[in-house]
Amino acid sequence: MTDKFIEQIKKTGAPVCVGLDPKLSYLPECISKKIFSENGLSLESAAEAFYEYNKAIIDAVKDLVPSVKPQIAMYEELGVPGLICYRNTVRYAKEAGLIVIGDVKRGDIGSTCASYANAHLGVAQLTFGARVHKEETFAADYATVNPYMGSDGINEFLKTGKEFDRGIFVLVKTSNPSSAEFQDLETEGEKLYEKVARKVSEWGEASVGKCGYSDVGAVVGATFPEVGKRLRELMPHTMFLVPGYGAQGASGEDLKSYFDKDGLGVVVNSSRGIIAAYKREEYAKYGDAGFADAARAATIDMIKDLRENS
Amino acid sequence: MTDKFIEQIKKTGAPVCVGLDPKLSYLPECISKKIFSENGLSLESAAEAFYEYNKAIIDAVKDLVPSVKPQIAMYEELGVPGLICYRNTVRYAKEAGLIVIGDVKRGDIGSTCASYANAHLGVAQLTFGARVHKEETFAADYATVNPYMGSDGINEFLKTGKEFDRGIFVLVKTSNPSSAEFQDLETEGEKLYEKVARKVSEWGEASVGKCGYSDVGAVVGATFPEVGKRLRELMPHTMFLVPGYGAQGASGEDLKSYFDKDGLGVVVNSSRGIIAAYKREEYAKYGDAGFADAARAATIDMIKDLRENS
Repeated sequence: MTDKFIEQIKKTGAPVCVGLDPKLSYLPECISKKIFSENGLSLESAAEAFYEYNKAIIDAVKDLVPSVKPQIAMYEELGVPGLICYRNTVRYAKEAGLIVIGDVKRGDIGSTCASYANAHLGVAQLTFGARVHKEETFAADYATVNPYMGSDGINEFLKTGKEFDRGIFVLVKTSNPSSAEFQDLETEGEKLYEKVARKVSEWGEASVGKCGYSDVGAVVGATFPEVGKRLRELMPHTMFLVPGYGAQGASGEDLKSYFDKDGLGVVVNSSRGIIAAYKREEYAKYGDAGFADAARAATIDMIKDLRENS
Repeated sequence: MTDKFIEQIKKTGAPVCVGLDPKLSYLPECISKKIFSENGLSLESAAEAFYEYNKAIIDAVKDLVPSVKPQIAMYEELGVPGLICYRNTVRYAKEAGLIVIGDVKRGDIGSTCASYANAHLGVAQLTFGARVHKEETFAADYATVNPYMGSDGINEFLKTGKEFDRGIFVLVKTSNPSSAEFQDLETEGEKLYEKVARKVSEWGEASVGKCGYSDVGAVVGATFPEVGKRLRELMPHTMFLVPGYGAQGASGEDLKSYFDKDGLGVVVNSSRGIIAAYKREEYAKYGDAGFADAARAATIDMIKDLRENS
């Protein structure tokens, strides 16, 4: 899968992932007013509005970027209708030719992770006597995964990923302020996130592709630029999924050390900065009805910023 | 919420949680044959079978134990129909008077955790202009939470938990073999799980109830008895949710050090050992159609084992 991902990054010249993290407060009135007036305010109508919003954003950026990343928490909050929207968003984005990273941050003990892996990277496999039924549910191309419980859960994701040619991004150093509390603890002469990085590199060894990168990537926040260089050394064959660009404070210049010498190995995520761009002063001219054009313009500007610094 | 939990543990004399982690291979034929013959083999029929199975187990144990713990991964694997079953299982168990621990192991950065907290401990809050709609989706009484990203995500769970009088169990030391890889790393003279334990104790300070325990519990695997004593010292006001009993290898004797001097402060989970008891030699006499009675008998035996050792 990662060969394909790197290929699409090269083709678009854009190491970018658009975060599909909808919130009611981001919705343009041209969507919310119509849907909530006609159908009332409910979990179902909110999920319908999210889906309309996501489709318009996907259509506006699909020729510019290789990938999108829906954050499942925003959908889970809306219960069952929200998860129908999540599933449909994953499918719509895949059909648009985009690589989809399911930002699910799942993690558990081995046998339980097998179920999560089936849900997010594989298929539900039902057997009863001689009958077998297989069906995809929420499967994306990649899933984000939490490492706290160690290898035996991760191995289930690797097994399913191998079977379906899909990958994972493991949390290494996250972009939030309190990430230091545990991730930065010193252990055996290095930080915990460096230990996790070594494991991530190890977990990926078996799946390094022609592109030089494995199917086991790392989540490395954009908000700690000094960390990027060290993690690049520890994980030379690991794709970095980098959240925290834009709204969370980081710019292209902060990310120079994350890229390899060919300007590859990284995909930078921006969510609010793109999907709610029409609310930012710089893109206000697009107006409410031009929210998708504003998202496109913000994506183009982000790509330019990254090209100047990769 | 934890005052109520301790009260129910005292009333039943059973520091026990029944893990509702259904698998197709656990289903008795009296359920699977009927449903799959009539409705075919599909995500919907599998979810229906899980729900029938769960209801029978809940009915069989609800007067014996204070709590159940559905593992959401098993439901997520079945996609949308599975999550409808999860939601209905949570509701059915609550209506039966049980305390429900949603084993979701969610964790993310702050703003994202707010959405997870709404989903699993609170309500979806929809606003549009002056209109407001609030609705519960997957809310249980407790949710399990992953600490890797530190306080800012946890705080969102605490905020929602406070508003709705609900709590969390934070992963501290898990029961799986590879839990040592990161959790046992030495840092500043102690193990990472001890650091996490200190934080858990801190996060709970504001919610210690009359019972002496807070609404911030800890997941502490039953498979490392030597660890229990140390963690009890570090977290005197913290309820322990203890997986790994039975099928994962631990017995009541291993858990002595987990309890406080009054034999409280612990809830021990058993999943397969109870819900699939009819497949165990000791309970084979109940037969396929007696699967719920076998679950009841296994629960009674587990309670007895724990009473002798708490």
